Amino acid sequence: MYINIPKALNLISQFHIDNNHALSPPELYEPRNYIMAMPGKKMRALLCLMGYGLFKSDVENAVEVSYIVELFHNFTLVHDDIMDEAVLRRGMDAVHVKYDQSSAILSGDVMLIEVYDRLSQLEHVKDFLPLFNKMAREVCEGQSMDMAFEKRDDVTIVEYLKMIELKTAVLLGCSLQMGAIKAGASCQDQNHLYQFGVNAGIGFQLQDDLLDVYGDPKLFGKKVGGDIIQGKKSYLFLRALDLLEEKDRNNFVSLYESQELNENEKVSRVRSIFDELYIRNYCEEAKSAYFQLATTHLNEVSVDDSKKNDLLDFSKGLLNRKK
Amino acid sequence: MYINIPKALNLISQFHIDNNHALSPPELYEPRNYIMAMPGKKMRALLCLMGYGLFKSDVENAVEVSYIVELFHNFTLVHDDIMDEAVLRRGMDAVHVKYDQSSAILSGDVMLIEVYDRLSQLEHVKDFLPLFNKMAREVCEGQSMDMAFEKRDDVTIVEYLKMIELKTAVLLGCSLQMGAIKAGASCQDQNHLYQFGVNAGIGFQLQDDLLDVYGDPKLFGKKVGGDIIQGKKSYLFLRALDLLEEKDRNNFVSLYESQELNENEKVSRVRSIFDELYIRNYCEEAKSAYFQLATTHLNEVSVDDSKKNDLLDFSKGLLNRKK
Repeated sequence: MYINIPKALNLISQFHIDNNHALSPPELYEPRNYIMAMPGKKMRALLCLMGYGLFKSDVENAVEVSYIVELFHNFTLVHDDIMDEAVLRRGMDAVHVKYDQSSAILSGDVMLIEVYDRLSQLEHVKDFLPLFNKMAREVCEGQSMDMAFEKRDDVTIVEYLKMIELKTAVLLGCSLQMGAIKAGASCQDQNHLYQFGVNAGIGFQLQDDLLDVYGDPKLFGKKVGGDIIQGKKSYLFLRALDLLEEKDRNNFVSLYESQELNENEKVSRVRSIFDELYIRNYCEEAKSAYFQLATTHLNEVSVDDSKKNDLLDFSKGLLNRKK
Repeated sequence: MYINIPKALNLISQFHIDNNHALSPPELYEPRNYIMAMPGKKMRALLCLMGYGLFKSDVENAVEVSYIVELFHNFTLVHDDIMDEAVLRRGMDAVHVKYDQSSAILSGDVMLIEVYDRLSQLEHVKDFLPLFNKMAREVCEGQSMDMAFEKRDDVTIVEYLKMIELKTAVLLGCSLQMGAIKAGASCQDQNHLYQFGVNAGIGFQLQDDLLDVYGDPKLFGKKVGGDIIQGKKSYLFLRALDLLEEKDRNNFVSLYESQELNENEKVSRVRSIFDELYIRNYCEEAKSAYFQLATTHLNEVSVDDSKKNDLLDFSKGLLNRKK
């Protein structure tokens, strides 16, 4: 095993504790410390360390970079939770609930500035900035598309896949690539790792859509069927729309968007339509295709295959996760 | 005249028009174009060009840098207007009113990312970033202090001056310094220009407080007495608190915070207390002291005094403006 994941997680946790700010004014920095201290998978930081670990073994040298991607991710969570009116985050009060909306907006802003402040102090700042700027802009574009989709009734699957690529997957690719940059990897290796992360990231998001409908209620941790209850335009919904005959489409949309039906009744009726259309299989197939594409890129990275196993296992685990 | 202000303003305007984004998704970029196209003084862009113009005459070379400071300023306006629940900006609908709150948060975010994207592409990126990061963080700290002051009843004048320094003045200093950096000025000259801008900026903000109470209603453009009606902890209010005898303080605070009194009645009663205490003079004196301090720094900048006249006149104009 070339990189010890528990050790990496320990490094990340310790770095997080050490980097809690006691800066003034506390109103500005406490919300930042609050969300950064929440329990979480720290997936992006871990991917960054794994990207580094493919090429070099002294992963502690990449912890600062891994912290930057995690800080950026948490900035997006603070603002997204306001936009999405989400009250819970990782089982705890969202920042704008725990504090207030203005504090959440402003603390998010200063987190993004801190991200750039830290990036600016990295040795290879000029290599990081173009990649990071493009990713950051794309994440905003993805969130914007996601919000716009709520008001539209003509969203295509191609658009949906683009949206999840921008909103979620590019940051995963970027995390891996930033680790590789820090390790001094070649541009080709960097790009293959980025593509691996983006494609695995799309698969990761498709698994999210699947779990929402087909997750095991005992393992999932959230209410199964949440997307259906909210009428969210998920991959499963859009694929069903595509497969339905025209005469059945309007009824299905009415059902899916209905807010009057009993919630369990609605979930069960939508699910039985999904089942008739084999939607689960289509989604699993798409997920596999993206994972296949991801692995072809990982194969191209010019390090021993043995070094890639952990990253491969880790991403397989994410794509088949139960919660 | 070493720098032609109308010409500079023309350059800025043209650059603003050329840099309207037709990027996708439109929901994300339209709010950005909307606020950037609003009529405004473009004071920060102009200061940046004037800072450059002290050392070099080809000001068109500094237009990109001047655009960056203006874009950053407008990012803060978009988010501040949400936090302050301000519905108007430069006489037009604020961004979160014209569009919606989520669009305003997200468009503000992408504006800040664009700021860094543009900074990253500057030739002397490493000189700009530390200055800019510090300034950006301080602007957030100033806004945070401003919001916290609303809930406190023990704000001191020293704290108030620190708040306006962070919230407003450091960006003015930074704008000048960035122009100077672009022109290749020495560190000493850069620092003196920065200090000139910060101190003039504090004076500028004190003039804001003065105008609110003593502005000529015909020239001011906004309702005179707005700060008094809102019970805002301005320099005038805090100075009055300092000067009042203890026995009169509670009554004054009750009057100032009252929301029941007729607005005109309230403004007139507060103003007559200000008058009895010669608050206007105290504030004018503080303003002059900051302007004096500013000019000592400008004097130290190692270029011909003749080249400094426009900058001096411009800042005098700002500190004595009627609206």
